[in-house]
Amino acid sequence: MAGRVRVIMVSVNPASALKPGARVAVVAPASSFDRDAFEAGLAVLAGRYQPQYRPDIFSRERYLAGDDARRADELTAALADPAIHAVFCARGGYGATRLLARLGGGAPPGAPKPLVGFSDVTSLHLWMQAYGRISIHGPVLTQLARLGPAAHQRLFDLLENPRPAPALRGTDTFVGGVAEGPLLGGNLSVVTRLLGTPFMPPLDGAVLLLEDRGERPYRLDRMWTHLKLAGVFDRIRGIVLGEFTECEDKDAPWRSTELLRELAQATGLPCAAGFPIGHGEHNEAVALGARVRLDADACELRFLQAAVG
Amino acid sequence: MAGRVRVIMVSVNPASALKPGARVAVVAPASSFDRDAFEAGLAVLAGRYQPQYRPDIFSRERYLAGDDARRADELTAALADPAIHAVFCARGGYGATRLLARLGGGAPPGAPKPLVGFSDVTSLHLWMQAYGRISIHGPVLTQLARLGPAAHQRLFDLLENPRPAPALRGTDTFVGGVAEGPLLGGNLSVVTRLLGTPFMPPLDGAVLLLEDRGERPYRLDRMWTHLKLAGVFDRIRGIVLGEFTECEDKDAPWRSTELLRELAQATGLPCAAGFPIGHGEHNEAVALGARVRLDADACELRFLQAAVG
Repeated sequence: MAGRVRVIMVSVNPASALKPGARVAVVAPASSFDRDAFEAGLAVLAGRYQPQYRPDIFSRERYLAGDDARRADELTAALADPAIHAVFCARGGYGATRLLARLGGGAPPGAPKPLVGFSDVTSLHLWMQAYGRISIHGPVLTQLARLGPAAHQRLFDLLENPRPAPALRGTDTFVGGVAEGPLLGGNLSVVTRLLGTPFMPPLDGAVLLLEDRGERPYRLDRMWTHLKLAGVFDRIRGIVLGEFTECEDKDAPWRSTELLRELAQATGLPCAAGFPIGHGEHNEAVALGARVRLDADACELRFLQAAVG
Repeated sequence: MAGRVRVIMVSVNPASALKPGARVAVVAPASSFDRDAFEAGLAVLAGRYQPQYRPDIFSRERYLAGDDARRADELTAALADPAIHAVFCARGGYGATRLLARLGGGAPPGAPKPLVGFSDVTSLHLWMQAYGRISIHGPVLTQLARLGPAAHQRLFDLLENPRPAPALRGTDTFVGGVAEGPLLGGNLSVVTRLLGTPFMPPLDGAVLLLEDRGERPYRLDRMWTHLKLAGVFDRIRGIVLGEFTECEDKDAPWRSTELLRELAQATGLPCAAGFPIGHGEHNEAVALGARVRLDADACELRFLQAAVG
């Protein structure tokens, strides 16, 4: 399948803004999930929209929410259905990358439509961005009930409001400077798993978002080095680091943040860390594929483009 | 640094056969290591050759055997020194990939010379093979004393005997058939970390060797899927699976070998598994970059070309 997709990032084509009460779909393109967390998240979503899902969403096959055919069909049907105004992923885990071989041969079906999720869903976001679409790096359904009302409101605003979202603040300047470009990326593990494949959008001029969970420091180093060897840092303009949770080596006298700082400094690119994005307590929704301005000195990420039009 | 290396696999240029008593070097291009295991391995090596090493080989920097400059200098000096006839790696772990940015801009220095190691050393092997060289996927020094005399003898034979090594046998046919080509690869994690970088040799026509340790099944799946999305299975001719140790999900009712079988079957390529290569009890030395013939039905890997000339 290599070489089938060859896409230039064209001008971004935003989805239409949602209205409260809109019909939305929940899909499970990756791992199977906890039923209680699903129901709790569904209740949050149902407080704002009319969510629907297929009964076979509860399928399990090893670590997957059913086989590739089921998950691919569920996702493409939701994207293609003009009566569905946004698609929420139940959980990340692992499995969305497997779908790219089935889905990635062409553009996402249907009109532009917000796809919401993070972690393993990063591979679907990159597929969206390869076709010039905006999608939403934000909470998965099974995480929604654990987040506060402010996080829900930010997500709903992103889906409903054709103005750029409020800026986010990080905690640490790793390399000072300012960078502007489309925000691309997401989960470090998943981003690196598309290197050398035709499913990675062009990263030229991008501000790269990275976060991860449960990766030991040498693995963070190995993935970062992969980005370096693939020339990614020669093409992007800046780096936004979200949460890196459970990424410590408990026997080591140093913290993974020191390693990340050192790796970031070697790139020379504006880089700020500690943004409330990813697997931590907060997982603020942000629009991927939309233009941002990173002021690394001020640890501020400003959004220049709305997720919806 | 992307794009600097662009190499066609030319006719392979073997190193000269070693003689007992030859001067050889021990280097640590990756992680720091246990001193006792080092001394024990050195004693095995000193029973056959005259090993030498630099005093700074015992350096430690986080998980690395000293900083990148030290490790790169130690490695290139050993490769370039005409008085050194083979280079043995002390340990894998992680760190050799970091050296590629420093080393990979050109051919390995000096005349062809056996480089011995596995696991993280896979990245150096791929660098060697990108320049048409044969190198040896075999025990690291700190592992030598734990292996039996037969494993030592196979390694010494590989270094000293200009005839192809005896065939090896695996345990399971995943996909029947016969494939012939240069044997490339090594550690699955490390092989996939060179996808999309200029440091990966062309894999066209290759028989791909893969082994790994300590990777949960979904991670094996994710790495295998990376190879698939990068088009690797469209270019290679066959797959040789070594040991996959500590790769089980202990909560799962299925074994990782079932997953690997399923993934291999989806490629349609001749594939046999269970070869005594990798992180298991045995780690039989094999020549990478040299031609092999895999008979997957017979679970036999025959070597058609010697490691040395």
